[in-house]
Amino acid sequence: MTTLTPKTIKFLQSPTSKAWVEQAIAHLDTILLDHSHCERKAASVALNLMFRYPSNRSLVKALTAIAQEELQHFEQVNQWLERRSIPLAPLSAPPYGAKLKAEVRRDEPERMLDLLLVSGLIEARSHERLGLLATHCPDPELAAFYRGLMASEARHYGIYWTLATQEFDRPIINQRLDELAAVESAILATLHPEPRIHS
Amino acid sequence: MTTLTPKTIKFLQSPTSKAWVEQAIAHLDTILLDHSHCERKAASVALNLMFRYPSNRSLVKALTAIAQEELQHFEQVNQWLERRSIPLAPLSAPPYGAKLKAEVRRDEPERMLDLLLVSGLIEARSHERLGLLATHCPDPELAAFYRGLMASEARHYGIYWTLATQEFDRPIINQRLDELAAVESAILATLHPEPRIHS
Ligand SMILES: [Fe+2]
Ligand SMILES: [Fe+2]
Ligand SMILES: [Fe+2]
Ligand SMILES: [Fe+2]
Repeated sequence: MTTLTPKTIKFLQSPTSKAWVEQAIAHLDTILLDHSHCERKAASVALNLMFRYPSNRSLVKALTAIAQEELQHFEQVNQWLERRSIPLAPLSAPPYGAKLKAEVRRDEPERMLDLLLVSGLIEARSHERLGLLATHCPDPELAAFYRGLMASEARHYGIYWTLATQEFDRPIINQRLDELAAVESAILATLHPEPRIHS
Repeated sequence: MTTLTPKTIKFLQSPTSKAWVEQAIAHLDTILLDHSHCERKAASVALNLMFRYPSNRSLVKALTAIAQEELQHFEQVNQWLERRSIPLAPLSAPPYGAKLKAEVRRDEPERMLDLLLVSGLIEARSHERLGLLATHCPDPELAAFYRGLMASEARHYGIYWTLATQEFDRPIINQRLDELAAVESAILATLHPEPRIHS
């Protein structure tokens, strides 16, 4: 598997393959539609985390801001869909999200650590892949849009990381992050046949 | 049951009782905490409706805007909690939401109509009760805050109503609204012993 970037995004163990970039660029409309779903799901993830930890003020504050930004992204991606006359439609999710969710341990406080780290990993991967789309997308305006979103997703993974450090000790976080990041990279090692942001 | 307003808010069959106003004003801190949960839930309801009807562009557009506003309200109410040194904490929900949810029919398109009308009724009741809080709250700044939110909640029930009219015929909507509004008023006819926005 050829990789495209010598430098891996902080958090991620393996960079995205060239095969994913080729698949995505060949199916940009599907990628845009899937991206719309991803942004809505990202808003939902942040909101659900708040529901689970309603007494944690700094978590609630940070996640409210993330949910608001994800809804803005959702709106912006939907404007791109409209512009390219791509109808809104359901789209089957790749196994990525469900497989990561399955890694979340059931009991507290492990559950909270895993939820924060899994969310951070997804944000980090989104950041990396939106960056690849920005670099390889043939439409310069769409490329600029992806570049704009990249920065937010990087900030989001930083926020999930910071929330983890507010609740857990560094060695515990680092060890669990290693384990989860290994799973995350393993899931993506085989390209999912349907073009998706996380295929 | 003595009522406070001669005029009932459009949508609602019975105005809120004086007993609710007295209960709420006597427990303003609990009402503020419950209000925070209500705003987060309102955002969640809008987001979940989008998940259910992902292909309906005008619905998705309108609900994205509602979800964003509810998150803003959530943030604003949380600032009030901070200002009054009320810690964020879980709070048991009154039966109102679950009882209304139980009225939603299972099959489409009835399900969609009921979801839109139930959401509209909840917004209408919130609008009415925030207005009562604005009128009766002894803290003029908090009263002004409630007055500000009132207008948004009125707009929200208008949006849910408009979405219903885009999908269903007027006589069908009116008949079902009558039924659901009767249930909504019946639920609130007995004051829930714990002070809540929808007690
Ligand atoms: Fe995003
Ligand atoms: Fe994000
Ligand atoms: Fe609201
Ligand atoms: Fe509302």
